Amino acid sequence: MPRIIQKYGGSSVANIELIRAVARRAVAAKREGADVVVVLSAMRGETDRLIGLANEACPDPDPRELDSLLSTGEQTSVALFALACQALGEKVKSFLGHQAGIKTDDVHGKARILEINPARLKTELAKGRVCVVAGFQGQDRHGDVTTLGRGGSDTTAVALAVALEADVCEIYTDVEGIYTTDPHVCDSAQKMDKICYEEMLEMSSLGAKVMEIRSVELAMNYGVRIHVRHAHSQSTGTIICEEDADMERTPVRGVTHSVNEARITLLKVPDHPGVAATILSIVAKAGIIVDMIIQNHSEPPGTDAGGEGLWTDFSFTVPAADYENALDLMRAAGREIGAAEVLGDNNIAKVSIVGVGMRNHAGVATVMFQALAKEGINLSMISTSEIKISCVIEKKYAELAVRALHGAFKLGGPIHG
Amino acid sequence: MPRIIQKYGGSSVANIELIRAVARRAVAAKREGADVVVVLSAMRGETDRLIGLANEACPDPDPRELDSLLSTGEQTSVALFALACQALGEKVKSFLGHQAGIKTDDVHGKARILEINPARLKTELAKGRVCVVAGFQGQDRHGDVTTLGRGGSDTTAVALAVALEADVCEIYTDVEGIYTTDPHVCDSAQKMDKICYEEMLEMSSLGAKVMEIRSVELAMNYGVRIHVRHAHSQSTGTIICEEDADMERTPVRGVTHSVNEARITLLKVPDHPGVAATILSIVAKAGIIVDMIIQNHSEPPGTDAGGEGLWTDFSFTVPAADYENALDLMRAAGREIGAAEVLGDNNIAKVSIVGVGMRNHAGVATVMFQALAKEGINLSMISTSEIKISCVIEKKYAELAVRALHGAFKLGGPIHG
Repeated sequence: MPRIIQKYGGSSVANIELIRAVARRAVAAKREGADVVVVLSAMRGETDRLIGLANEACPDPDPRELDSLLSTGEQTSVALFALACQALGEKVKSFLGHQAGIKTDDVHGKARILEINPARLKTELAKGRVCVVAGFQGQDRHGDVTTLGRGGSDTTAVALAVALEADVCEIYTDVEGIYTTDPHVCDSAQKMDKICYEEMLEMSSLGAKVMEIRSVELAMNYGVRIHVRHAHSQSTGTIICEEDADMERTPVRGVTHSVNEARITLLKVPDHPGVAATILSIVAKAGIIVDMIIQNHSEPPGTDAGGEGLWTDFSFTVPAADYENALDLMRAAGREIGAAEVLGDNNIAKVSIVGVGMRNHAGVATVMFQALAKEGINLSMISTSEIKISCVIEKKYAELAVRALHGAFKLGGPIHG
Repeated sequence: MPRIIQKYGGSSVANIELIRAVARRAVAAKREGADVVVVLSAMRGETDRLIGLANEACPDPDPRELDSLLSTGEQTSVALFALACQALGEKVKSFLGHQAGIKTDDVHGKARILEINPARLKTELAKGRVCVVAGFQGQDRHGDVTTLGRGGSDTTAVALAVALEADVCEIYTDVEGIYTTDPHVCDSAQKMDKICYEEMLEMSSLGAKVMEIRSVELAMNYGVRIHVRHAHSQSTGTIICEEDADMERTPVRGVTHSVNEARITLLKVPDHPGVAATILSIVAKAGIIVDMIIQNHSEPPGTDAGGEGLWTDFSFTVPAADYENALDLMRAAGREIGAAEVLGDNNIAKVSIVGVGMRNHAGVATVMFQALAKEGINLSMISTSEIKISCVIEKKYAELAVRALHGAFKLGGPIHG
């Protein structure tokens, strides 16, 4: 008997009518002979409503109390889902995080799952029941409710797929699957039938919003097959799985872009050991996460009049929201460090190409740079990994760059395997 | 250090502003040196909202799922209360039923508390924290959420008072305390300073709405002092405690009335063993709860022409909502039983006088019947217990009867001990 995990997000359970619709879907899978475990988020808007109440009660709410409060959102949606299944005549039981055996550490607001004891779920599945589990929540060793942070319900679904050795973890959302690029930017974007974990991780962190990185990592570590699909459509979506020969034959499989970053550059920083660490520790202390880091090769001695010794230019990118803060910190520190000047630019975009086939294909970067050059787009930073190349460009060119790269790598063809 | 349980109902925590007000009250008690454990109901309206959603999802909701759903109401109010205490600078922790160690049977919707393990509450109190516990809920041996039924938060408060050996259990409500009679009916109604458990039980079951019977019984069994008082007033309310000499000196301490009952009478029922059981088992099978039962002494043989043997008239009262159903059942059964006629009357009221002093005072019934006769009120049924006398009268006389009895027993004097 196949075992399926189905996860539905908040917009798929926003009201009773929609809850009934997804209950029908779960019940249909059950009646086709599968063991079905459903994971739900809170009804859309509910988490925000609760956060609003919390902030009204206390400007800086205690994370333990906030977790207990927010977890009522999922508790409500799973009970209503179970009742909707009952109305369809199906045997069903709802489970809170702790009832499903989900044990976490005690870092409230972003707890990590330590262990899942799925004994009770297995018993109920064996009795022929649909099981519906509150996403996003667990219990720590004190018996307190914890929440898993952003994307937590995806994490719950994948972790349960691991614990229950499920055949597939279906992530239902409001898009048809994972696309070769953002369909809002590029008409010829194609839904992918398959994507491998590494590609999905790069796509997630580079701006594709369908799945959170943490749950993809978890799925990769345990080899859980994920099927990303539309909650109100019967068509097949995208499978996230191990890489295969098909994927490796294609050098580039997706193009992403992000306009939520900003660049800071320190010009003519004295080039001695530890200077990069000094610069980055200042932003790290302020809780700012740095993405790309570029340090140019130093000028050889003598090329600069005055013989001031070695120096280098140092650039990094930060989230746009942290730009002003990071720039102020660097301007203050720049003098001490001895930088000639501190520049900032929040008028940038990052475009990236991703594909596991890049490992075996030469010349991919050349095709990328030529495609951008052809459109007159200048590159201000470049960064590479084994399976991706990212370029920082002027923000106004972001969409044009995406279309140019999507075309150059022939991603707009017939459906892409 | 005194240990106080404070229970606030839904209208006292209906919004954040009110939650802040009761948080201030709890924090004030804490700062005066008490150990404080607060028990809360759901915010007013929340339970009804959740029941509405449940009924929308399923016309006949599974009680286990309903319990999990409804328990979110109290989970929300205790978290918000804790945050309001935090904003006042007080150390505080919220507890769900299971976190407070409240173990129940698995009768969803009206679970009974089996055991309380207050170890965690004691630890947190010892650390100087205010503890706030979700009322109305517990956990059964399966790890499932249960609810305690109507008045469940009062039960939680009293049970915690027992488990924690509290000095007093304060029940905060929207009235000043327990009155000698309904102040809406009788201007001269007096707030009582004290009432004993037995009197309170009779008052509760006879129509006074302040506290549920089950929590009063629990308090009586364990000798918990209850203080019923107004949530937004500093004045002393009514203490519910063991009876004392003061109470015994007064023959009648309260007058209650109920207009939510109806009477069924079977005329000339053959008087042989088992007939009462036959009649009552019919209504019991329909789930109808019978209150008063009166069987008149049989007529001696020979007084009735035809020598049909012994017969009797048999009357009982049922809740008004069950009147039509009970009447139909009796009309159907009456023929088999051999009753001459089945009569019904839903135009009745029950007025009662209550007082532990009745045990030692003769002539109380006489005073009652004379007072009613003086107002021209006819009695259609009379029933007595050790500490109360109830009369069924025509509904239109209900308020008049209450005022007549309140006056006859001089309950409208200076505040009544």
